[in-house]
Amino acid sequence: MYERKESCLLKQTRWSLVPTCVVVVLITTGVLAQNNLAFAPDKMDTILYGVAYYPEYMPYDRLDKDVELMQKAGITVVRVGESTWSTWERRDGEFQFAWMQRVLDRLHQAGIKAILGTPTYSIPTWLYKEHPEILVTHNGTAPPLGDPYSPTYPPSLTPGNYGPRQNYDFLNPYFRQHAERVIREIVGHFKDHPAVIGYQIDNETAPTSIPTQYTNAAFLERLKQKYKTPETINKIWGLVYWGQLADKWEDLPPRDGILNPGYKLEWENFQHDIVTDYLAWQAKIVNEYKRPDQFITQDFSGGVHTNLDQWAIARNLDIVAENPYFETQKRLDARGIWLSGDLGRSLKHTNYLVTETNAQTIGWDSRTQYPQYPGQLRLVVYTHLAAGANMVEYWHWHSLHYGQETYWKGVLSHDLEPNRTYAEVSRVASELKRIGPELVNLKKDNKVAILFSADSANALSYMPFSDHANYMSILRQMYGALYELNVEPDFVPAGDANLSRYKVLLVPPLYSASDEVLQQISDYVKNGGQAVMALKSGFTDEHSTVRDVILEISRHHT
Amino acid sequence: MYERKESCLLKQTRWSLVPTCVVVVLITTGVLAQNNLAFAPDKMDTILYGVAYYPEYMPYDRLDKDVELMQKAGITVVRVGESTWSTWERRDGEFQFAWMQRVLDRLHQAGIKAILGTPTYSIPTWLYKEHPEILVTHNGTAPPLGDPYSPTYPPSLTPGNYGPRQNYDFLNPYFRQHAERVIREIVGHFKDHPAVIGYQIDNETAPTSIPTQYTNAAFLERLKQKYKTPETINKIWGLVYWGQLADKWEDLPPRDGILNPGYKLEWENFQHDIVTDYLAWQAKIVNEYKRPDQFITQDFSGGVHTNLDQWAIARNLDIVAENPYFETQKRLDARGIWLSGDLGRSLKHTNYLVTETNAQTIGWDSRTQYPQYPGQLRLVVYTHLAAGANMVEYWHWHSLHYGQETYWKGVLSHDLEPNRTYAEVSRVASELKRIGPELVNLKKDNKVAILFSADSANALSYMPFSDHANYMSILRQMYGALYELNVEPDFVPAGDANLSRYKVLLVPPLYSASDEVLQQISDYVKNGGQAVMALKSGFTDEHSTVRDVILEISRHHT
Amino acid sequence: MYERKESCLLKQTRWSLVPTCVVVVLITTGVLAQNNLAFAPDKMDTILYGVAYYPEYMPYDRLDKDVELMQKAGITVVRVGESTWSTWERRDGEFQFAWMQRVLDRLHQAGIKAILGTPTYSIPTWLYKEHPEILVTHNGTAPPLGDPYSPTYPPSLTPGNYGPRQNYDFLNPYFRQHAERVIREIVGHFKDHPAVIGYQIDNETAPTSIPTQYTNAAFLERLKQKYKTPETINKIWGLVYWGQLADKWEDLPPRDGILNPGYKLEWENFQHDIVTDYLAWQAKIVNEYKRPDQFITQDFSGGVHTNLDQWAIARNLDIVAENPYFETQKRLDARGIWLSGDLGRSLKHTNYLVTETNAQTIGWDSRTQYPQYPGQLRLVVYTHLAAGANMVEYWHWHSLHYGQETYWKGVLSHDLEPNRTYAEVSRVASELKRIGPELVNLKKDNKVAILFSADSANALSYMPFSDHANYMSILRQMYGALYELNVEPDFVPAGDANLSRYKVLLVPPLYSASDEVLQQISDYVKNGGQAVMALKSGFTDEHSTVRDVILEISRHHT
Repeated sequence: MYERKESCLLKQTRWSLVPTCVVVVLITTGVLAQNNLAFAPDKMDTILYGVAYYPEYMPYDRLDKDVELMQKAGITVVRVGESTWSTWERRDGEFQFAWMQRVLDRLHQAGIKAILGTPTYSIPTWLYKEHPEILVTHNGTAPPLGDPYSPTYPPSLTPGNYGPRQNYDFLNPYFRQHAERVIREIVGHFKDHPAVIGYQIDNETAPTSIPTQYTNAAFLERLKQKYKTPETINKIWGLVYWGQLADKWEDLPPRDGILNPGYKLEWENFQHDIVTDYLAWQAKIVNEYKRPDQFITQDFSGGVHTNLDQWAIARNLDIVAENPYFETQKRLDARGIWLSGDLGRSLKHTNYLVTETNAQTIGWDSRTQYPQYPGQLRLVVYTHLAAGANMVEYWHWHSLHYGQETYWKGVLSHDLEPNRTYAEVSRVASELKRIGPELVNLKKDNKVAILFSADSANALSYMPFSDHANYMSILRQMYGALYELNVEPDFVPAGDANLSRYKVLLVPPLYSASDEVLQQISDYVKNGGQAVMALKSGFTDEHSTVRDVILEISRHHT
Repeated sequence: MYERKESCLLKQTRWSLVPTCVVVVLITTGVLAQNNLAFAPDKMDTILYGVAYYPEYMPYDRLDKDVELMQKAGITVVRVGESTWSTWERRDGEFQFAWMQRVLDRLHQAGIKAILGTPTYSIPTWLYKEHPEILVTHNGTAPPLGDPYSPTYPPSLTPGNYGPRQNYDFLNPYFRQHAERVIREIVGHFKDHPAVIGYQIDNETAPTSIPTQYTNAAFLERLKQKYKTPETINKIWGLVYWGQLADKWEDLPPRDGILNPGYKLEWENFQHDIVTDYLAWQAKIVNEYKRPDQFITQDFSGGVHTNLDQWAIARNLDIVAENPYFETQKRLDARGIWLSGDLGRSLKHTNYLVTETNAQTIGWDSRTQYPQYPGQLRLVVYTHLAAGANMVEYWHWHSLHYGQETYWKGVLSHDLEPNRTYAEVSRVASELKRIGPELVNLKKDNKVAILFSADSANALSYMPFSDHANYMSILRQMYGALYELNVEPDFVPAGDANLSRYKVLLVPPLYSASDEVLQQISDYVKNGGQAVMALKSGFTDEHSTVRDVILEISRHHT
Repeated sequence: MYERKESCLLKQTRWSLVPTCVVVVLITTGVLAQNNLAFAPDKMDTILYGVAYYPEYMPYDRLDKDVELMQKAGITVVRVGESTWSTWERRDGEFQFAWMQRVLDRLHQAGIKAILGTPTYSIPTWLYKEHPEILVTHNGTAPPLGDPYSPTYPPSLTPGNYGPRQNYDFLNPYFRQHAERVIREIVGHFKDHPAVIGYQIDNETAPTSIPTQYTNAAFLERLKQKYKTPETINKIWGLVYWGQLADKWEDLPPRDGILNPGYKLEWENFQHDIVTDYLAWQAKIVNEYKRPDQFITQDFSGGVHTNLDQWAIARNLDIVAENPYFETQKRLDARGIWLSGDLGRSLKHTNYLVTETNAQTIGWDSRTQYPQYPGQLRLVVYTHLAAGANMVEYWHWHSLHYGQETYWKGVLSHDLEPNRTYAEVSRVASELKRIGPELVNLKKDNKVAILFSADSANALSYMPFSDHANYMSILRQMYGALYELNVEPDFVPAGDANLSRYKVLLVPPLYSASDEVLQQISDYVKNGGQAVMALKSGFTDEHSTVRDVILEISRHHT
């Protein structure tokens, strides 16, 4: 039965041509999971279907009307609370819960579940006033490639601006102290609320990469712990080059102008670990309060990220969440949705959540706004489910009347009245009410995997080999070839010890890899696996240092 | 008789095809205005025709020769003194007048009138040495659109560079103190000089948009006065979004990284008001001295500006001035000249001055230098007059031998000898001597208007809807359609209560508008007016907040 | 005999079509120079042929193997020691010589000569730690042209980043103090080593152009010495423009935002002189130690430089060195190599060295890596020699395993084993062993010269006349025309008094020139010379001030 579903769903990857296949899906019969006291990502009752909801953003009080409309549509879950620290804590240490109590009570009354977010992605104005050094300037652009004279990072002392979100120093102790308090207050207050099924910690967290006094100190401490003596990094990074040996730890210069690929790769991994540690720290706090049946998740912006260690982050979560947005109308292409789903599912090798996806048009400006054609929204829901999602939530319920995202429209438009999208959501909700229990907890047993190496992507970005191609473009090329063949892959991180469960392993440029990683692939091939390795693989070791010997990967001929 | 002139001049908008129409103009007979003791922009004696003149810039003393050449050409007016604060005040508090006395006396002797400028657009080196914080870094580029992560303004603490002009903090008290003193000294000294017919305050003034300690303080004070409590801006700007509520005024973050459209629009209007107030302040000082027959003007760089409130500035002037430059040779196109003239005339709904326009080639470099064809310079003069100009002055008399503008040539080239341009100027001057009194004080009674909303242009720039079009491009499209039809429009600012004098109202995207402004248009249509409104009109209110109701504009069917 | 060589070598400029011409070269017989106790650039014994060699960069100790391979190939010279200050001086004041002693001894044992470099292009980490202000931020991009509002220089207070090389303040006293000590220690220690035939001071030295406290002070002092009173610069630069007169020296603003072309040109010349003085200072120190038979050189990155006074630098050197890199495969074009050679030879009007050129692929990334075709490397060696080079050294012996230049490959690849390139090097070395003494000290007596004016190139860059052409593009156009005609030119700097030795003088836009320079050209033409002057010549004087009289260049009709 499962096989049959998979087969059909794989055909569906070309559904822009064969959308009727959805119907076939609907008549399959799935495994009905039982509710358990302890949450498990693959033991959910049914597909959850809902929206992010910000009653605090509304131009006037419409809680009752909104919940009635949701209930009428058949929405079963909403995400609340993650965006508005200053509503939770208007003044330093003065917390307000009544506004959310009212929302959760009303939702509960309507039988709608809630995912409660920690509101840490944007700090309140009073905290900025007290500690402006919490913020760092974040210009949102990747360091320029191949222009090594250019300072690739903003100088440490650039003051941060208030206004953007997610531009704080994760290691700033004042930020941590205030973040911890607001998390404890919120989760402690609402943990027993019957509507709350889980928690989202932070939101699309990503490193700033900006050197600060705290990150610089922590980086030095990391080096001391990891490499014991400066002599070690002198050796493995080759600091003798251009006469840049560090005789004492204190002599090591900060990240700002560094060109050394080994240093840069270590810094990048340090940035990964900052985010992982930060989310683990939030998860640990929430874990002190949450009920066993509640989960902790965190939402990745859709797809594969080279500036995060997504597998490490996932280990701190009960269930992974993805925010896959997509193009619409004639540009609708399931490839990005599938890639995001395959990644989300692979991170814990089980089912995952979709916490955000298009309701109507998206974008921070209205230059590329194309409302979806009738039916496209429904088609996309079943695509998510086919990849293993156990929930689909739109961002968001209503359209905003102020702020940066007035063009990023919700299920309701600015007039806040039911519309075509609302009708399509209602139709899908009604279908899921019926077949959700059969589609939930879908299992995959893929035989092809793509080996992902963030280190290789980053190390290659310091030493690019083309203006037209890079690590990610080759990964996407490999993924696209599988997609065209209707073959669903898993993603495995470089260093994963379980390669043997796959028949074929695709390896985008494995530019930076330890001997151990190369040995794993060699063993995999020796044991009958088929590996397709891209150019530049094995070029450097885990410190981005070029090898002076050529390692031989075992060859297996079929 | 007036009707006949208008008709002909309108035909002339296509004069690149029908230049002979100029001849027709020459044989019409105008209204001969009488001289009055009190200056009025529409009661001037004749067309003034002249140049900006900087004897202090010359490589050697040529005052007598220059004035002789001017006199021989028939030039009747020069603008002097606005560029050289350090010549007026070589050391802090030590003023020099003799150099200008000699110039004005010599001009008066030759029967040439003078417009005396206040020299405030560039501060002297000693003032920068004393107060370097007066200067702000001005990189001359517009904030990037649609890239909201990018800090849209330079951080407040960037030190200003000496070298560019118009890069000072208008609100710096030391700047104001020194500016006031030099204005009082100059105007007080020369107010009774018979050659001086008026004053130009500052030059092409525009806001820097850069946050400084003084602008930040003034902005906060403005908010307090205007909105009384932070709760009001929390509400109207939606600061709840991303948790950015301000509980106390002091918590409100500075402009630097702000993404909130309401905040940005208020800041933009604040920048407008800084310039308006600054010019009103200069006008007030000059008014304490000037004779009733003297005027105060200020020169706008040609055309419509979204970073100024040009109507508000005009209310502080006796007569408006424009600096319309244009392309030459085959690229000569009257559209820009007309637009500039229609705007200049509309600002006070009366005649205006042209203080600067091309003599020979223009540009800060020589990449696009095309000397005009014979006759083009003359053609342009009559175009200006046809739009309602009562004066045409070239920038400038001679070409510069140093500084940034050596390629921006005057009537005389670097050899400072009479040439082809001098000959054409002489011809025009001789014509104007004869017919100037008939062409002066031309009145217009246009039946079409374009409604201009700087707020809409700015608010849309924060939330762009296209890579190819924006507020100004649509405005120019509308203007161009009228131009092709030989229909001259007026410009009216959004909020103008006198729409009823027009038969047709063209409305470029009125993205940001108060209910009152929308009501005025609705009433206008109800009363029989024809309004053509562009896309995105009525989308947001005056705070750039999206409306949740659709306002209905009355429809009048003809 | 000489004539015959020249003729043939000129033909060889088209060798991409007629590569067999090399054979013809090989059978000519040259003048065999005698060895002298005192070094003279045109009295060398034979062609030197070798590599830059960094044993300190190797992943493991291979000194013996490397030298054996070099010896076997026939390499006769290596450059050592210029890249690794921190290896020489690991801690402040603690010097290490043993590592280099071992290298030089081993080379001497193998009969290979050494050029010893001063290691000043990159400071050690401990020096940065002690004096971070030594470094200045160097973004590697030229100041934007034609956008005068843009601050053309980074603000003085931008902190420098550690990581790039050649980004220090040449005038920082702590840098000078430490640089002097390390130079004295190294040269003092090894001056008597029999392997050492000469010294390279610094490496591809170029000005940072960044204002610092020390450069600002030195610039002011220069102005005082040169112009005596501020009144002089007020006059010659026209500081009256925009009211920027300086009444006292202290009032003169720093370079940061300056738009005045005269100021900018003086600053540019000041930057030239900083580099010249710095290299003269290094040469003076080395001269205190070196033996008469040893030379001092400095390597210019290949070609003509507008940010240096290369002739002035050359006066402080015993012999000039060039680093001409080139494109390979089908893009191989001798034009750039010739230009570099003609320039290198012209700087002291005698033979020169090639200290760096391609071994295998080059580039800081691998986007444009094209290994040379078989034979191209050999062809290029003879091209260098034909232009007057007395040495050809590759950069470098081995390929790097870390740092910025892992793609910039040496004779050996990353596996450090002999390869195709090694074989071609061996072949050339064997040829040179035989015919080197005949090809060395080649003399040229060119009859055509190109007059080079860095002032004109720089002054025009502030006032560009085209988006498509500039000083250098016209210079290259002139050079290219000669190249196509098989005519080899010399370069002469503007102001050179010996124009009469040339029959034809090509003058790229001589935009900025003193009366004296123009008079020299006029006299040259009067005396029968043929001058071809490009547009914009004579436009401004040596202060970038536009002339108000047209100077007449004598015309000589043939």
